[in-house]
Amino acid sequence: MREVAIVGVGLTKFGELWETSLRQLIVEAGLRALEDCGVDGKEIDAMYVGNMSAGQFVRQEHISSLIADHAGLVPIPCTRVEAACASGGVALRQAFIAVASGIHDIVVAGGVEKMTDTLTGQTTGALATAADQEWEAYIGSTFPALYALMARRHMHEYGTTEEQMAEVAVKNHHNACLNPYAQYRREITVEDVLNSPPVTLPLKLLDCSPITDGGACVILAPADRAREFTDTPIIIKGTGQASDALSLHDRSTLTSLRAAVHAADEAYKMAGIGPKDIDLAEVHDCFTIAEIMAIEDLGFCKKGEGGKITEEGETALDGRIPINTSGGLKGKGHPVGATGIAQTVEIVTQLRGEAGKRQVSGAEIGLAHNIGGSGGTCVVHIFQRGD
Amino acid sequence: MREVAIVGVGLTKFGELWETSLRQLIVEAGLRALEDCGVDGKEIDAMYVGNMSAGQFVRQEHISSLIADHAGLVPIPCTRVEAACASGGVALRQAFIAVASGIHDIVVAGGVEKMTDTLTGQTTGALATAADQEWEAYIGSTFPALYALMARRHMHEYGTTEEQMAEVAVKNHHNACLNPYAQYRREITVEDVLNSPPVTLPLKLLDCSPITDGGACVILAPADRAREFTDTPIIIKGTGQASDALSLHDRSTLTSLRAAVHAADEAYKMAGIGPKDIDLAEVHDCFTIAEIMAIEDLGFCKKGEGGKITEEGETALDGRIPINTSGGLKGKGHPVGATGIAQTVEIVTQLRGEAGKRQVSGAEIGLAHNIGGSGGTCVVHIFQRGD
Repeated sequence: MREVAIVGVGLTKFGELWETSLRQLIVEAGLRALEDCGVDGKEIDAMYVGNMSAGQFVRQEHISSLIADHAGLVPIPCTRVEAACASGGVALRQAFIAVASGIHDIVVAGGVEKMTDTLTGQTTGALATAADQEWEAYIGSTFPALYALMARRHMHEYGTTEEQMAEVAVKNHHNACLNPYAQYRREITVEDVLNSPPVTLPLKLLDCSPITDGGACVILAPADRAREFTDTPIIIKGTGQASDALSLHDRSTLTSLRAAVHAADEAYKMAGIGPKDIDLAEVHDCFTIAEIMAIEDLGFCKKGEGGKITEEGETALDGRIPINTSGGLKGKGHPVGATGIAQTVEIVTQLRGEAGKRQVSGAEIGLAHNIGGSGGTCVVHIFQRGD
Repeated sequence: MREVAIVGVGLTKFGELWETSLRQLIVEAGLRALEDCGVDGKEIDAMYVGNMSAGQFVRQEHISSLIADHAGLVPIPCTRVEAACASGGVALRQAFIAVASGIHDIVVAGGVEKMTDTLTGQTTGALATAADQEWEAYIGSTFPALYALMARRHMHEYGTTEEQMAEVAVKNHHNACLNPYAQYRREITVEDVLNSPPVTLPLKLLDCSPITDGGACVILAPADRAREFTDTPIIIKGTGQASDALSLHDRSTLTSLRAAVHAADEAYKMAGIGPKDIDLAEVHDCFTIAEIMAIEDLGFCKKGEGGKITEEGETALDGRIPINTSGGLKGKGHPVGATGIAQTVEIVTQLRGEAGKRQVSGAEIGLAHNIGGSGGTCVVHIFQRGD
């Protein structure tokens, strides 16, 4: 396989974008990515797009053709992939494989979701279709409920506290204040989180990522051509994807996502490095407990110590291993199909040294961890600044 | 890129399968494919599955995790792709790229759709979401209406007749009678088609493919390992995928699907052959006019002569270029996400010489042509019996 680099990145503002439709979101992100690296649309050979559920949110399947058309990319192949909230990460992986294989050279990996202003008025109901309908959703388990079960068990087994979970939200809102694309650019306190309305206890409103509209794109090229487009190519050093049972009751543990452990193992192995080599990571904090589990699953601390190292500031911008410098899903927003690509945009921005007030100094190697549903799918990518 | 072979195939019965759920359909097809080639589930490295709209049909997204779990494949990566009715063809292409790249060795490409017994009761409405919602579906254009526009234009430009379209259905029902997996195993006559109830004229009921439940799987392996699993590996010699505008009004012509022409060009070029070298083809006859346009777009006859060569028997089982020996979407059934894989299963079965009463004698090279929606996506694959 050929080595593959990311040469361009683009994001829309994340938020409740009442004036912007699905097709506009992805085109806007794509144009920004093309401008970022000076690639002409005619040079694009293929596109992959992650999207969870345009069919349910805006009653539009087959968005690959819609996007190819509205982006002026016809007749190149455009392919939608879906793995719930991991759709973006899966799109990046398919784009990576396509370039690595040699079948395509310049490939766009995008992600998009239009979650507000939906036609069905069923945003939470649609999101619940990422869980097992027959064993979970029909009996009332929405996503906050599933993650609340994990949180309770994590508290029981490891003594994790609601205050520690709140610290995740506080940190991510702080980082989001430094990110012009973020949905929630306001500081919150531990007290704010603890006193926010209960959703499914122990998870309160401010433990939960929001409903968001947004799009994100990155441009991939063979590493040996990357400097045609950018002075700071970012190499995809490792990729890992794994599956787990869709239903919580079918899993061996509730306090770790096994798909994340498998995907991380694979990505670390491919990159030839370990957790200690990672300078910063974007992880899938759809709920605050999810970030705590993620940093454990990725090996940044011992199992059960995720809450503790968060409380101690190790995951802060100036900490030992900065996590979710973008603001994460909690602060930046979570347009589900776009999230995996938006994580990649943040890591690339950091490794280029272009992250402004939230820049992690000396960042050379970054990781993105993208979860589908309650952990049925996980995709991990490792990125390194090109020599 | 490595050469890639198909070593195993499996299908479910196609039809109204009231006793079988989505998760059962794909597992049944997968087990048959594994049995077909003696591959143990533990040898599978990855799976791609094509599915158009489980989200709308059975309110279940994230079926990749569901399938990995129910097929006993956890923790391997399982990836859903969607391109409306071309979802299966796109899944095959991604599986091909994955094996060709070297990132995976033994990969399943599957397709599945559960279209009857849906929870929303909106099968036709859900299918219409493969067209452009804002410009087509909201103003009442269901798929029969879009293809009826193409049919009218084809009749106007080339003198194609309703009788010629009816001949497509008659032929495909005849072939389906010889296929034990087909939904409609009964002969029909031109008179039956012409006298069937109008859907959107000139298309009558028997011009339209049905609503179908079904699953299909094929197993891919590097060609140099194929004989570990089968005596008759079938090589994927060419693959092409292309996009076109989603809306008919944005296209340069109504009588040809430009995505099909592009995808076929790419596949022919990769295989180093042309239309005259093809011994048989499965084409996307979602409506009878679609088969007529397909055989023209693929170069099996001159533009405008698709109706004529059908009427003259050139596309019959014993004709010059047998088309849809399986019965096609019309006779075999059309579980939309499974169709592209089911077409592949038929070509592999024919090239192996295992098609029984519908065997095309001496078949060495076959082609599959899979369309998404009204032509916004097309995938073409060319297969050849291994030496």
